[in-house]
Amino acid sequence: MRATLIYGAGDVRVENVPDPTIKEPTDALVRITSACICGSDLHPYGSKEAGAPATIGHEFIGVVEAVGADVTSVRAGDVVIAPFAWSDGTCVFCREGLQPSCLHGGFWNSGDVTGGQAEAVRVPLADGTLVPVPVGADDALIPSLLTLSDVYGTGHHAAVKGGVGPRTTVTVIGDGAVGLLAVMASRRLGAEQIVLMGRHASRTDLGREFGATEVVAERGEEGIARVRDLTGGHGTHVVIEAVGHMPAYEQAYGVVRPGGVISRVGVPQYESAPVGFGSIFGLNIALTGGPAPARAYIEELLPDILDGTLEPGRVFDRTVDLDGVPAGYRAMADREALKVLVRP
Amino acid sequence: MRATLIYGAGDVRVENVPDPTIKEPTDALVRITSACICGSDLHPYGSKEAGAPATIGHEFIGVVEAVGADVTSVRAGDVVIAPFAWSDGTCVFCREGLQPSCLHGGFWNSGDVTGGQAEAVRVPLADGTLVPVPVGADDALIPSLLTLSDVYGTGHHAAVKGGVGPRTTVTVIGDGAVGLLAVMASRRLGAEQIVLMGRHASRTDLGREFGATEVVAERGEEGIARVRDLTGGHGTHVVIEAVGHMPAYEQAYGVVRPGGVISRVGVPQYESAPVGFGSIFGLNIALTGGPAPARAYIEELLPDILDGTLEPGRVFDRTVDLDGVPAGYRAMADREALKVLVRP
Repeated sequence: MRATLIYGAGDVRVENVPDPTIKEPTDALVRITSACICGSDLHPYGSKEAGAPATIGHEFIGVVEAVGADVTSVRAGDVVIAPFAWSDGTCVFCREGLQPSCLHGGFWNSGDVTGGQAEAVRVPLADGTLVPVPVGADDALIPSLLTLSDVYGTGHHAAVKGGVGPRTTVTVIGDGAVGLLAVMASRRLGAEQIVLMGRHASRTDLGREFGATEVVAERGEEGIARVRDLTGGHGTHVVIEAVGHMPAYEQAYGVVRPGGVISRVGVPQYESAPVGFGSIFGLNIALTGGPAPARAYIEELLPDILDGTLEPGRVFDRTVDLDGVPAGYRAMADREALKVLVRP
Repeated sequence: MRATLIYGAGDVRVENVPDPTIKEPTDALVRITSACICGSDLHPYGSKEAGAPATIGHEFIGVVEAVGADVTSVRAGDVVIAPFAWSDGTCVFCREGLQPSCLHGGFWNSGDVTGGQAEAVRVPLADGTLVPVPVGADDALIPSLLTLSDVYGTGHHAAVKGGVGPRTTVTVIGDGAVGLLAVMASRRLGAEQIVLMGRHASRTDLGREFGATEVVAERGEEGIARVRDLTGGHGTHVVIEAVGHMPAYEQAYGVVRPGGVISRVGVPQYESAPVGFGSIFGLNIALTGGPAPARAYIEELLPDILDGTLEPGRVFDRTVDLDGVPAGYRAMADREALKVLVRP
């Protein structure tokens, strides 16, 4: 089959690799019909050292081609959503809704499991991982359903971990797909005020449609001052950090209210950060977040998509076929595209 | 009056300073009858650069001598507890129970407000700050009541912010007074398992009496392995970090369960710390805590003390008069005393 491989910084290629096959009785073989490029794929795309190429991509919808003998919840022909981590659904952490910490699970593109920007993939632990959806693989709802594999679930996770609810004020840092869907999720959970910090007018316009009450384009000290102006001087109860770089984190503790929460879902591109008296401790600010249990949220978020209430798939502003994936990476890295849909 | 002044590292002296007086109509003048030395006083005692001397001490019980014209909730003769921050009790943060962030409040030993290891003190915003108690200044309950000014409230805060409740497993790092009272608070909130990490047998023995189910004396990697052994390999839901130094923080993220919480109440002696994918982000671990709103917890914690159910005052193992304060600091710094009660 053909699959996307990352060779190094700025270097992704679509090449022939061995076809995936059923190896374990709990596997499913899925033909990928829709996938996408993630903001987090841009981290290795921006920095990977040249070396052994690796498959890439962790968000997809596809059609089940075959299942192992022990698989009971999906069958050949089902259209399924895969979250960005595979998991057994039965271990202590899965039962608590923390599938990325599944005792027997893992992530795409690790070990002998390949990635989502490809024609097909072997899905381990299919019963725990895959969620069948009642639409065809070409349905108009597919882009929105595809966001359940990662970006909408991740935006929702940020809001849930931050404790967003009615009467909550929220700042969302970052106008990428996760930031915009964190706005949608915060609105869905009843947030009273949602300040979106982002510099790309076409994206922040979409953020307003998703529920942002104000947009702040300034960054750094100037941006912090603007958010404080909008919040009676105190900042917001919750700050969702959907970027992953240090300036975004510094902005986060600059705009969070005393006693508030910084919820991070941008994968941190740093290991150490300020957490002492002068940044978060002195004001009783909590720091939370992590890789979203996208699998845990699918059932909750699905109905609003199926009935047309919410359209998270509006974050896709470009569609490519597999051959177009390298150009898709360039477009996202250059901020020409917000999020690229891949139709293998 | 006589008051304790810190001149530099290892150098505290008891000297004559001007008597405090009522300055604002919201002030009270309090004659201090019981005070103490705090683990956090040991931080400047260990590191303060020589320079202008400053008063020190932030935990006390005393008798009201006089009040300003606007004070209505306490009167001359009342025995009162003072929390370690003074606050108006009416601002937006006080109403939310976050008195250390009071818009009009502050901390002892700042501006023209002196400290608690002294004969008397001017208490600003007396109505918001002071809590009268129905016992005499020499009552046998005074040591336990005195812990409400800081260390018991701080231990309780750690447990509350960590989300301790029934079926929660907890690790408490640190066998100082705050650590031991975090054990008591966790037990009171219903924790199922409480692992106390500490090396001083006399202290950890008291920790067992307060509710610790296991004690781990090892530190670092060895200590982490021991806690994991005691918790099915996964660590505990909550880790209370009651020390403030980096090795304790590193221990904290070594023993916390995926999806769990590190609750810090030891004042961090560092500004940056690991919070990236490899420490807390990857496992969805939250970091919380800060200066306790001791004032907010007094009414909740008082009844168990007044009726004798709990005796947090057992953390005091030495009593000195004002002249004995310098020796008290030495004893605590040398770990000869757990916590020193001062009777001015």
